[in-house]
Amino acid sequence: MNEAALTLEGWYALHDFRSIDWTAWKAADDEERAVALDELHVLLQEWGSIEEAGTGSTAVYSIIGQKADFVFMYLRESLEEINQIETAFNKTTFAQYTTKAYSYVSVVELSNYLASGEGDPRQKPEVIARLQPVLPKSKHICFYPMNKKRELADNWYMLSMEERRSLMRSHGLIGRGYAGKVKQIITGSVGFDDWEWGVTLFADDPLQFKKLVYEMRFDEVSARYGEFGSFYVGNLLTDELFAEMLKL
Amino acid sequence: MNEAALTLEGWYALHDFRSIDWTAWKAADDEERAVALDELHVLLQEWGSIEEAGTGSTAVYSIIGQKADFVFMYLRESLEEINQIETAFNKTTFAQYTTKAYSYVSVVELSNYLASGEGDPRQKPEVIARLQPVLPKSKHICFYPMNKKRELADNWYMLSMEERRSLMRSHGLIGRGYAGKVKQIITGSVGFDDWEWGVTLFADDPLQFKKLVYEMRFDEVSARYGEFGSFYVGNLLTDELFAEMLKL
Amino acid sequence: MNEAALTLEGWYALHDFRSIDWTAWKAADDEERAVALDELHVLLQEWGSIEEAGTGSTAVYSIIGQKADFVFMYLRESLEEINQIETAFNKTTFAQYTTKAYSYVSVVELSNYLASGEGDPRQKPEVIARLQPVLPKSKHICFYPMNKKRELADNWYMLSMEERRSLMRSHGLIGRGYAGKVKQIITGSVGFDDWEWGVTLFADDPLQFKKLVYEMRFDEVSARYGEFGSFYVGNLLTDELFAEMLKL
Amino acid sequence: MNEAALTLEGWYALHDFRSIDWTAWKAADDEERAVALDELHVLLQEWGSIEEAGTGSTAVYSIIGQKADFVFMYLRESLEEINQIETAFNKTTFAQYTTKAYSYVSVVELSNYLASGEGDPRQKPEVIARLQPVLPKSKHICFYPMNKKRELADNWYMLSMEERRSLMRSHGLIGRGYAGKVKQIITGSVGFDDWEWGVTLFADDPLQFKKLVYEMRFDEVSARYGEFGSFYVGNLLTDELFAEMLKL
Amino acid sequence: MNEAALTLEGWYALHDFRSIDWTAWKAADDEERAVALDELHVLLQEWGSIEEAGTGSTAVYSIIGQKADFVFMYLRESLEEINQIETAFNKTTFAQYTTKAYSYVSVVELSNYLASGEGDPRQKPEVIARLQPVLPKSKHICFYPMNKKRELADNWYMLSMEERRSLMRSHGLIGRGYAGKVKQIITGSVGFDDWEWGVTLFADDPLQFKKLVYEMRFDEVSARYGEFGSFYVGNLLTDELFAEMLKL
Repeated sequence: MNEAALTLEGWYALHDFRSIDWTAWKAADDEERAVALDELHVLLQEWGSIEEAGTGSTAVYSIIGQKADFVFMYLRESLEEINQIETAFNKTTFAQYTTKAYSYVSVVELSNYLASGEGDPRQKPEVIARLQPVLPKSKHICFYPMNKKRELADNWYMLSMEERRSLMRSHGLIGRGYAGKVKQIITGSVGFDDWEWGVTLFADDPLQFKKLVYEMRFDEVSARYGEFGSFYVGNLLTDELFAEMLKL
Repeated sequence: MNEAALTLEGWYALHDFRSIDWTAWKAADDEERAVALDELHVLLQEWGSIEEAGTGSTAVYSIIGQKADFVFMYLRESLEEINQIETAFNKTTFAQYTTKAYSYVSVVELSNYLASGEGDPRQKPEVIARLQPVLPKSKHICFYPMNKKRELADNWYMLSMEERRSLMRSHGLIGRGYAGKVKQIITGSVGFDDWEWGVTLFADDPLQFKKLVYEMRFDEVSARYGEFGSFYVGNLLTDELFAEMLKL
Repeated sequence: MNEAALTLEGWYALHDFRSIDWTAWKAADDEERAVALDELHVLLQEWGSIEEAGTGSTAVYSIIGQKADFVFMYLRESLEEINQIETAFNKTTFAQYTTKAYSYVSVVELSNYLASGEGDPRQKPEVIARLQPVLPKSKHICFYPMNKKRELADNWYMLSMEERRSLMRSHGLIGRGYAGKVKQIITGSVGFDDWEWGVTLFADDPLQFKKLVYEMRFDEVSARYGEFGSFYVGNLLTDELFAEMLKL
Repeated sequence: MNEAALTLEGWYALHDFRSIDWTAWKAADDEERAVALDELHVLLQEWGSIEEAGTGSTAVYSIIGQKADFVFMYLRESLEEINQIETAFNKTTFAQYTTKAYSYVSVVELSNYLASGEGDPRQKPEVIARLQPVLPKSKHICFYPMNKKRELADNWYMLSMEERRSLMRSHGLIGRGYAGKVKQIITGSVGFDDWEWGVTLFADDPLQFKKLVYEMRFDEVSARYGEFGSFYVGNLLTDELFAEMLKL
Repeated sequence: MNEAALTLEGWYALHDFRSIDWTAWKAADDEERAVALDELHVLLQEWGSIEEAGTGSTAVYSIIGQKADFVFMYLRESLEEINQIETAFNKTTFAQYTTKAYSYVSVVELSNYLASGEGDPRQKPEVIARLQPVLPKSKHICFYPMNKKRELADNWYMLSMEERRSLMRSHGLIGRGYAGKVKQIITGSVGFDDWEWGVTLFADDPLQFKKLVYEMRFDEVSARYGEFGSFYVGNLLTDELFAEMLKL
């Protein structure tokens, strides 16, 4: 069976990183800001309803540093919905006070290195729950995209399935050591965006992001074969915290 | 016979990725927007007529994420026509509400690794149909540019014709496994743009893009010799869907 | 014991590099500038109080060249505080006359290559003092981010702990040769930002930055395994010097 | 004799790629546009006179895609003249409706791998004609900058003169196969710009650019040692075609 | 003795590359332009006085192509003076008509590969003259930053001092062959900016830049170990030529 056929895909994902144009936000009058906040609130409510209906999930976090001010991470059933949601946001008054920072298009993925067991995995509730996850409301988020390297002697894609499966097994053990501390969502982006995977981590203690990623870096899968893009780290934005961030 | 002489070229291609300046679009009054939409509609009609006349083809898709909001993929008989069409678009009122995102210049190409058979391939209807294709109206598009690597031991261009032909044969078999699911247009851009080829995929199920590209990545042609640029994925924009996207 | 468990982390850090929009600053009237300077002064006072209270530390330096005009380096107890402080700055009138230049998110770190000695290091006053340092008021600052390389035969993360420990020991000796001349703060950013570490140096004689970094470059740790990002160098901005810089 | 001494240099070159600010151009009133077009016309006339006087040559082409809208390629006797011409353009009203896209500084160069023959080559009319060429008025232009690689085992500059001469000989044979189809101007930019050479091709059939560059890519000089920058391709802009492009 | 201790440093350097905002310059009225030119003239006079007083030196050149329109190269006794001079320029009216293009921070350096001779070199007049040079008023300038490579088998910093000294000796011989034609100022930027050295060349015949850099590229020091950044080339701007450039 080929590699692609062994992978399971779930909801589509868009990570939409935005910066706030503080000068414009401050230059707006109270009424304009009220309209903008209302429209933002309506969207946040809609996204909440979708999550309650089980047809998608959304995470809202601030981002530390100049790369962005906040991120919306959307999980939805189709690329059409993903596109509609970003267009809907673009049309809000609030969006006019933001600028694009970075985005990532991917799809929730379960690895082909998992032992498959018996029966159709797509029918198993525990698999469905991982393919269509409710995003955690942890205090912190960490996102980064990554590739498997293809550089001369360090070429992941020239390894046999057995070698890759064995390497991934020890790699997975590290992740399991952080169970209860870090929740990890892997999304595949081959054919969708500029890196092969997106990794989204959730934790209440942000030091656990550092410890997990650092420990993994010594594992051969990352040490020899991992290529990493930009890292984004942030804090949970409840409706109240979002309002507080925007309050002048 | 040299490498270049074995390649067949058809229509010239321009992929023109654009973002919408939503703030300007919303700041415009109803009349301005009506003028802009009318001019856009006229262009879309003209492009349709060209397609009916068999002298070119055009695909119009939205793009997911912040890289762009939509793409026009033009196929035309000459670089003069390609240039005229982009200048004509630039002069529209609608273009004033868009910004440049990315573009790609190339020409439809049939590979020199194909078995040539007897007779002049340029006279065969099935070859002409592939060199001057009517672009599909599939629900989704995927575009990415690529190179063949020239890095020390992994140098595609230092392989013999026989080695390359053999490698491409197994590579092609993977593509054929997606027949009926993914339609693939290869355009050559050596001498025209920054990568050697553009790959444009069309499918009704966007997961097939991921599966096809991922499966190919384990094939030696991609694993050892493939270098990939940015990936763009999007949804079909019929006239109605385009109007809906722009409606405030 | 794993690598990550051997590392000690202290205060979180944000290096916030900004440029001054001189044209806007000069176009402002005296009153606006007075308001902006007052708000800046209030922030600087608050940061001073935090330092006196022992719950954080802040360094304020100009930056030479076009990369930025000044940097705020914040050390605080949590990512929440780091985020609040940057948002508070963004809301000031003064911030409207600045533009983003670069930022770096990290956490003060003591290396896992240190001899650990007896007892819990986290309880030792000299360790706490290094994890929660009061930033020096030296005349000059130097900041740069760095990685350990993972390139074929030069792969730091494929070395054994013993090899790394031995290499780091001789590396550390060079640093110790600059004791009294250069004060060094290492911050870890794996999982937080685009490089693995940030290095912030303080000295009264900026030539010592050059001599230290150059001497280290011949040490195998840097020579074979070091990858360096952009370097930023600057001069101490006391309240008076900051006011002088901004005076028209 | 050293390498540099064997190279012959002729006229200095500036490739000046520009984009049109269509929104500003359309917002201008008829009178402003008339002034801008007049000033542009005066410059084009002056450049024509210089070409007639044999003290320089200028090519004017549109560029396909978003990289630029047009290019002026200037050949002149000194860097002072090159600088004056770009400053003169910058001062025109027309320039206000354009933005910078890319530029390249170089000097027409004849390779040190040519058989030198007898006598001072700088005195031979056929050499002078190649060092001070009148740029063709072909229908199409193609420009790209390039380096010779210096990467571990693939290091052009560590080869002996004999090896390089032998490799260049077969490389040159490919070029000669396109005689009458493609006219090639090589300009050297070591010490002047970011790549070592600029290559400017002229042809009436743009497919010949693709065929020439692709065929050369299999030659060891390019396959192992060539590094290529961005490619720009465009169409001849006669005064009439330029006016047509700008007509609203 | 360590590497850093063998290097001699002199004056600090800032290369400040700027572009002119021609549209704004032309939109200004005559009075505003007169004020801007007066303030520029005052600065140029001040810099001249500093050079006469022997406490610094300044070079003013135009830059060819779109990278920048001119460069100020400042040599001063301290980073404080360097910072003051750039802030003073930023506060001028003329600066409002310019935009940042590139900058480089470094310090004049004499190599540790020089035979040291007897006595303290810092006391020798000929050494002081090289560490605190009066910048030439040659017709042309060329600037580029560079690194010594650290890539697997081509790692300058893993060579022994003897190997490096021997390689640098033959490298230096090439430079000496251009004595009287090209004046070279080496500035070190380890710890100060993104490359390890800046090279600033002065010549009356700009072809000598090309010949010198090209000849050196075949020398092992450059061929195997040299990494080069962007090249900037330009023409001397006397007060008269600067005024002429800005005259509308």
